[in-house]
Amino acid sequence: MVLYMVGLGLGNEEDITVRGLNIVKSADHIFLEAYTSVLGVDRERLEEFYGKPITIADRDMVEQQVEDLVLVPAKTKKVAFLVVGDPVCATTHTDLWLRARQMGIEVEMIHNASIMGAAGACGLQLYNFGHTVSIPFFEENWRPTSFYPKIKFNRQGGMHTLCLLDIKVKEPDFEAMMRGKTKYLPPRFMSVNTAAEQLLEAEQTVAQQAYDGAKTLCVGLARMGQPTQCIRAGTLEELREYDFGGPLHSMIICGDLHDLELEVLKEYLIEGSKFELEHAETQLDEVR
Amino acid sequence: MVLYMVGLGLGNEEDITVRGLNIVKSADHIFLEAYTSVLGVDRERLEEFYGKPITIADRDMVEQQVEDLVLVPAKTKKVAFLVVGDPVCATTHTDLWLRARQMGIEVEMIHNASIMGAAGACGLQLYNFGHTVSIPFFEENWRPTSFYPKIKFNRQGGMHTLCLLDIKVKEPDFEAMMRGKTKYLPPRFMSVNTAAEQLLEAEQTVAQQAYDGAKTLCVGLARMGQPTQCIRAGTLEELREYDFGGPLHSMIICGDLHDLELEVLKEYLIEGSKFELEHAETQLDEVR
Repeated sequence: MVLYMVGLGLGNEEDITVRGLNIVKSADHIFLEAYTSVLGVDRERLEEFYGKPITIADRDMVEQQVEDLVLVPAKTKKVAFLVVGDPVCATTHTDLWLRARQMGIEVEMIHNASIMGAAGACGLQLYNFGHTVSIPFFEENWRPTSFYPKIKFNRQGGMHTLCLLDIKVKEPDFEAMMRGKTKYLPPRFMSVNTAAEQLLEAEQTVAQQAYDGAKTLCVGLARMGQPTQCIRAGTLEELREYDFGGPLHSMIICGDLHDLELEVLKEYLIEGSKFELEHAETQLDEVR
Repeated sequence: MVLYMVGLGLGNEEDITVRGLNIVKSADHIFLEAYTSVLGVDRERLEEFYGKPITIADRDMVEQQVEDLVLVPAKTKKVAFLVVGDPVCATTHTDLWLRARQMGIEVEMIHNASIMGAAGACGLQLYNFGHTVSIPFFEENWRPTSFYPKIKFNRQGGMHTLCLLDIKVKEPDFEAMMRGKTKYLPPRFMSVNTAAEQLLEAEQTVAQQAYDGAKTLCVGLARMGQPTQCIRAGTLEELREYDFGGPLHSMIICGDLHDLELEVLKEYLIEGSKFELEHAETQLDEVR
């Protein structure tokens, strides 16, 4: 039989493709990967829409039991593995694909929109993006800036940088665990505000002028592809203060800005922004 | 009312999302943009699926009549403008969005899979891609290599380069026109073979070691997201000879290759390829 990796898109239950829906409706088992991203609706809503039960695949399950629970059944049954966005956007899904193939299981991908594509809705042209970076939650003694040189390289080449913001779902509560209880922390989703704050700190620490908190144009994205989608452009210092509402958030650090891109971004500029549209062409002067 | 820009995905009529289909079925006017890309099925198949007539929007129409035919009607009616892939992947669609907004028309985007996302199906991770380049058909006296420095910059940063290959739809037949006849040339879609040939020529002309025709790993992609999808990896010299079948084609020039990426690409390597998987880490030596 076949393992179907089905992209769900970004918003709600109706963002699945017609082909994807037909596959899900006729599948014997349905799993929903729920630790690299989240949809705008919950499992119950999907189950109602499909008329079928769904098993949540969290990180523990995918890392430890995916062979028994997903891959072995896919040898004899029709298994649908649902992924928010597109199934080729995260290494964890590529890894699943590879393991399936190595076990001789046929895999069919049903593509869909992902944040890497929907980021273009702010007007920045997708072919001008470079390396995508991930911004992890800084902790007291762990404040990695591995994203910094990539942003710098992108900007030196005039490219925009999409920043994917950290998600912590079902993280173990070590304090409770030390007292012998299995407990998980509530989910955390990094906001544009936190990301901007961390990027400002990284520029202070590394200090190689990859970007300028008061001058470089950035774009905050929230709930892309959902009815409450929010796009706002401004400097990092401005984005640090702006309220984007609930998750998921991501953000973009701009490179060279073409006329058409500026025209569209104008519509999203935070009111009173200090970003000087008329001097947009100077914004890469320091990094180059 | 609203202008709906609806992504159709890449394959056939069933790759539209459920939400997109509901919008199309209740639209007053439906246009299909048909010059930046093509779907795996024709207009008639879509019309049958939607139960509605579709107007083809070719380049002339979009450039000269889009205001009268699409935008003005969208002020009072529900207009669906269908786009192969995702509506934010080409400047021409961003431009339409902007014009609509400037006329006070609300625009709603229905995202979908695009080649920029589906390219990840070969195992190369999307966050390692840099600038996307376009390869135009070389003509006798017009052989531009503007893509070359971008590929070089991407590879210096270890990034992969997605190459979108030229499409010529409804090009005027100047010879016939000079004899007073309005005639168009048959559509042309650049193959991976032609792209590889032109890239080899560009390396000879510019000669800055951006890539090596006998050594650099590249990936040819054909009909992505369709049942006959074909992915093959090899050197440029090998891709120049391999038969990928019908359109649409695109290709990728690899940068740094991570273990997981190599594992997947192995499955797609052309039989007898000279690319040395075990020496993959040396393939950026010249360009750096």
